[in-house]
Amino acid sequence: MIQVTLIQIDNYGPWTVTPKPRRESDLQVLQSRLYEDLNLLFGAHKGLVFYTRFDNLIAITNGIDLLTHKRIQESIKNRYPFTVSMVIASAETAYEAQKLATKTLQEYGSAQDENRKEILDVANSLVSDGYVQIAHIDINNITGTFTDIISAYDTYLNVNKVKLLLMEELLKYNALLFFIGGDNYMSPCNGMTEEDFIKIFDKIKNKLDIELKAGIGIGETAEDAANLADIGLEKIRGKLVDKNVCFLRDDIIKLKPKKFCGLQ
Amino acid sequence: MIQVTLIQIDNYGPWTVTPKPRRESDLQVLQSRLYEDLNLLFGAHKGLVFYTRFDNLIAITNGIDLLTHKRIQESIKNRYPFTVSMVIASAETAYEAQKLATKTLQEYGSAQDENRKEILDVANSLVSDGYVQIAHIDINNITGTFTDIISAYDTYLNVNKVKLLLMEELLKYNALLFFIGGDNYMSPCNGMTEEDFIKIFDKIKNKLDIELKAGIGIGETAEDAANLADIGLEKIRGKLVDKNVCFLRDDIIKLKPKKFCGLQ
Amino acid sequence: MIQVTLIQIDNYGPWTVTPKPRRESDLQVLQSRLYEDLNLLFGAHKGLVFYTRFDNLIAITNGIDLLTHKRIQESIKNRYPFTVSMVIASAETAYEAQKLATKTLQEYGSAQDENRKEILDVANSLVSDGYVQIAHIDINNITGTFTDIISAYDTYLNVNKVKLLLMEELLKYNALLFFIGGDNYMSPCNGMTEEDFIKIFDKIKNKLDIELKAGIGIGETAEDAANLADIGLEKIRGKLVDKNVCFLRDDIIKLKPKKFCGLQ
Amino acid sequence: MIQVTLIQIDNYGPWTVTPKPRRESDLQVLQSRLYEDLNLLFGAHKGLVFYTRFDNLIAITNGIDLLTHKRIQESIKNRYPFTVSMVIASAETAYEAQKLATKTLQEYGSAQDENRKEILDVANSLVSDGYVQIAHIDINNITGTFTDIISAYDTYLNVNKVKLLLMEELLKYNALLFFIGGDNYMSPCNGMTEEDFIKIFDKIKNKLDIELKAGIGIGETAEDAANLADIGLEKIRGKLVDKNVCFLRDDIIKLKPKKFCGLQ
Repeated sequence: MIQVTLIQIDNYGPWTVTPKPRRESDLQVLQSRLYEDLNLLFGAHKGLVFYTRFDNLIAITNGIDLLTHKRIQESIKNRYPFTVSMVIASAETAYEAQKLATKTLQEYGSAQDENRKEILDVANSLVSDGYVQIAHIDINNITGTFTDIISAYDTYLNVNKVKLLLMEELLKYNALLFFIGGDNYMSPCNGMTEEDFIKIFDKIKNKLDIELKAGIGIGETAEDAANLADIGLEKIRGKLVDKNVCFLRDDIIKLKPKKFCGLQ
Repeated sequence: MIQVTLIQIDNYGPWTVTPKPRRESDLQVLQSRLYEDLNLLFGAHKGLVFYTRFDNLIAITNGIDLLTHKRIQESIKNRYPFTVSMVIASAETAYEAQKLATKTLQEYGSAQDENRKEILDVANSLVSDGYVQIAHIDINNITGTFTDIISAYDTYLNVNKVKLLLMEELLKYNALLFFIGGDNYMSPCNGMTEEDFIKIFDKIKNKLDIELKAGIGIGETAEDAANLADIGLEKIRGKLVDKNVCFLRDDIIKLKPKKFCGLQ
Repeated sequence: MIQVTLIQIDNYGPWTVTPKPRRESDLQVLQSRLYEDLNLLFGAHKGLVFYTRFDNLIAITNGIDLLTHKRIQESIKNRYPFTVSMVIASAETAYEAQKLATKTLQEYGSAQDENRKEILDVANSLVSDGYVQIAHIDINNITGTFTDIISAYDTYLNVNKVKLLLMEELLKYNALLFFIGGDNYMSPCNGMTEEDFIKIFDKIKNKLDIELKAGIGIGETAEDAANLADIGLEKIRGKLVDKNVCFLRDDIIKLKPKKFCGLQ
Repeated sequence: MIQVTLIQIDNYGPWTVTPKPRRESDLQVLQSRLYEDLNLLFGAHKGLVFYTRFDNLIAITNGIDLLTHKRIQESIKNRYPFTVSMVIASAETAYEAQKLATKTLQEYGSAQDENRKEILDVANSLVSDGYVQIAHIDINNITGTFTDIISAYDTYLNVNKVKLLLMEELLKYNALLFFIGGDNYMSPCNGMTEEDFIKIFDKIKNKLDIELKAGIGIGETAEDAANLADIGLEKIRGKLVDKNVCFLRDDIIKLKPKKFCGLQ
C-alpha cells in the first residue's frame, strides 16, 4: 500500500486576479516557494512532493501521520496569503490513492468555493505496513545528444514528448509520472516490474528514437525508495548492470549485496 | 525584436550525484529556489523567467542590460553551491532568439564541461527598440469540468496533453509555450495574430474537446506584455469581448480605450 | 535537562571575502535563508533555532536525535555554498549546555580551519527525559509608548538596551536571551522562577523606565514550551492574571485548568 | 544627502496572536524571509536593507525611485499574509532621515491601526544628487580571541556589548548602526571622519578591551558605499594601511590609486 496526499490551494484562481491580475513573476515566486516549503516540511519526515500543477500538488507520504500533516498545513497558513487543503488516501497504487483523495476533497466543495478552507481529512486510512516503489527515469546521454547540440527549447520539447508518452504508458499500470528537472522523471509505481519498464522504454524508443533508463527502488518511505532508485540509476550509468533498468530494495541490498539488478 | 536569455546551471548533472546521489527533496527545493530567485531578480527589472527544465531556464529580458545580468549571475554564485552561465540573444521571435543563445553557449563547451563556468555573453545584440508579445492561455472552466469532477492526476494529464499540443502548434509560428501553474500557459509569441490563436484553439478543441482562451499583450517589457495579457483574459472571463482571444497593446489602451479586442 | 545544538558555518569568514568581498545584500539574504531553513527543519521536529550571530546559531533541540541532525546537516550541504558543523550537548541550563557544545566543537579545530568540515558530535549525551523552559518576554505597550511616538531607530535603540540588560541579568541564572523581532525576546531559562523574572523586570524598570512582562512555559520540546509561554503572555495581555509574569506547564494545564498563574 | 526608507509591517503584532499565538518557528521563518526578499528586491537596485526589529526595517535607498518602491510593496502584498507601509525621507544624516520618515508614517495612524494599510509616501523629497557613506566595522581577530576560546553565547554577549556601545557613540554623530552577522556591523554614517571612528574605537577599547577596525566607503548608492567599505576593511586586514580605519571613495580610487587611506 502506498500513501498519497493531495494538497490543494484553497480558492486560488480567484485570488490571483483580485482585485486585478497579480504580477506573473510574483505568482511564479509564490507557487515555487510553496512547492519548496512543502518539500522541506514533508521531506523532513521522508516524504516527497511533486509540483504537479503548483496549485494542486501530489505527495507520497508513507510514514507521515495526520498530526504532522496538520502542523504543515498550519505552517503554510502562518506564512502565506492563502491556505491549503489536504486529503490523505492509501491504495495498492498511487493512481488509485490520489483518486480516492481527490474524491474526498471534492465532496467538501469546489476548489473555488470560498467557504471551503483548510480541509484536512483521510479518505480511507493511513498506511502502517506498506511500501513505496519509485522509478527514477532519465534520458540516455541527453547532454551529448540534445543539450549540447540542438536548441534549449527543442530539447525541452523532446523532454515533454517523452513525459507525455511516459504518463500515458505508466497510467496503464496505475503509476504516476512527474518531471523533476533536467532530463529526469520520477514515477511512484508500486507493483510494476523491470519487464514493464523495459517494454515501455522499447515503445518510446521506437516512437521517438529516445532511449531511457530507470533505477527503481522500494522502501518504507518515499525518500528511501527514491534513494535506492538513484543508486540503481548510478549502477546503470557505471555499467555495473547490463540492462537499462535496475531494481533495488532495502532487504535485498542488506542480505545479498552482489545479487541484485539481475547480476549473480 | 524580442530579447531572450538562456540560463544554464554549470555542470549540474554530475554535481547532483557527487559523491553520491543527493536527496531528491533537497534537489527539488534547490532548483525551485533558483527559479524563484531568478524571477525575483529579473522581475525587479520587468523580465520574466520560465522554469523550463529547471537546470536550463529561458527568460524574456527586453530592457535588461548586460550589467544587470552580470549582477544576477554574481548573486547566484554568492548564494548557491553552483554557478550559472547566461547568454542573451535577440530575434524577431522567441524561438529564433533562444536558438541563437543556445548556439553561442554551446560554442563555449558542453553543459557538463567542468572548465566552462559562468559564461556571460551576447549572441548578437541587445534589443533597444523592440517589443514583447505574450499570450496568457487558460482552459475554459477547468474547475467545473476537471478539478471538481475527475481525479487530480487525470486533470494534470489533460493539462499536459494541452501543453504538448500547444507547444507543437505554436512552434510553427516560432512561438514558445510554458506551463505556469493551474491551467495556465504563457507563450512569448511575437508576430502572431488573434486569428492564429483562434485556429490553434479550434484544432485543440477538435482533438481534445478542451476549449482554450487567451489574452494577448504587447509591451516594451515581458512584465508589461504579461500584464496586458492578463487584462485581456479578464475581459474574456467578464464577457466584455465576444470571442476567446483578446489582444491588447499599450498604445491602443491609452489612445482608444473602447475600441480594443475587436469591439467598436 | 535541556538539549542545545550549536550550529556553526564552516570557515565562513574567509569565504565571504574570497576572491573579493561579496555583495552585502547577497550575504544578508544567504545568512537569513540559512536561519529560515534551520528553523523550518528543526521546527519540523519541534525544535527552535535562534539566529544569534547568523554564522553561529543556537538551537534548543530536546527530542531531536542525532540522525535528524545529520539529515539537516546534509540538507544544508546540498543547497548552500558552504557546510555547517553541529555539536549537541545537554545540561541543567541552556548556558551550560551551549558551553559544553562550544568546547567540543573547538576541540575539532578553529572555526576558520579549512580542514574542519561538517563536524557532527554529541558533547556529553542527548536528553531523553528532560524539559525545556522558555520565557517569552515583551515590552508593555511598545506601540503606544515608542513605535507610534519616537523615531524607528530610537525605538530600536531602546529595544537593544533592554536586550543587553536582560542578557546580563539572565546570565546570572545561566539563562540565555535572544531577540525575536518587534519588542519580543525569548529566553531558554530552565530552573528559573516567577520571582526571578519579577526581580529582573523591577531592576530594568528602575534603570530604563521600561516595563516588561513574560509568559513562561515548560514543555517536552522547545515548541511546546514556547507555545505555553505565548499563551501565558496572552493571559497577561488579557488581564486574566494580576501580575506581569505567567508561568504555565503542560501538566498543570491538563489537571487544574483554573489554578495556574497564581489564580485560584 | 542620504535617502532612507522606513518599512513597517501593517498591524503585525495583533496578527501574530490571532486567533491564537502562531508557532514561533513559523514567525521566525516569515520575518526572516521578508528581510531576505526586501534585500533581494532593494538590492536589485543597489539599495541595502537592515533587519532592525524585523517588523520595522530601515533601508538605505539612494537612487531608488517611488515607482520601484511601489513595485516592491506590491510584490510583498502578492506573496505574504500581510502588507507593508513605506515612507521615504532624505537628510544630511541617516538618523535625521529615518526620523522624518517615522514622523510621516506616524501621521497616517498607529502601527496597529487596522485601517492603516500600505502607506507609500515621501516625507520630504527623494535624493537626486546625494551620496551614501557606510562604515563596515568588525572586531579584530574575533575568531582567535573569542570564537575559538570562549563559549558561543559569551562571544555573542560581547558582540552585543560592542553593538550597544557603538550605537550610543555613533548616535552622537547622527549615524546608525546595525549588526550584520558574525562580528560585523554596518553604519550609515554620512559626514563622519576617520578621526571620529578612531576616537570611538579608542573609547570602546578602553571600556571593553575589544579592538575594532572599519572600512569606510562613499558612493552614489548603498551598494557602492558598502563595496568600498569592504575593500577598505580588506586593506586593513592585509596590512596595506597603518591604522584601523580606511576611508575610500569612488573618485579617489579612480584618480589617485596609491594615495588613499592616508598612504602616500
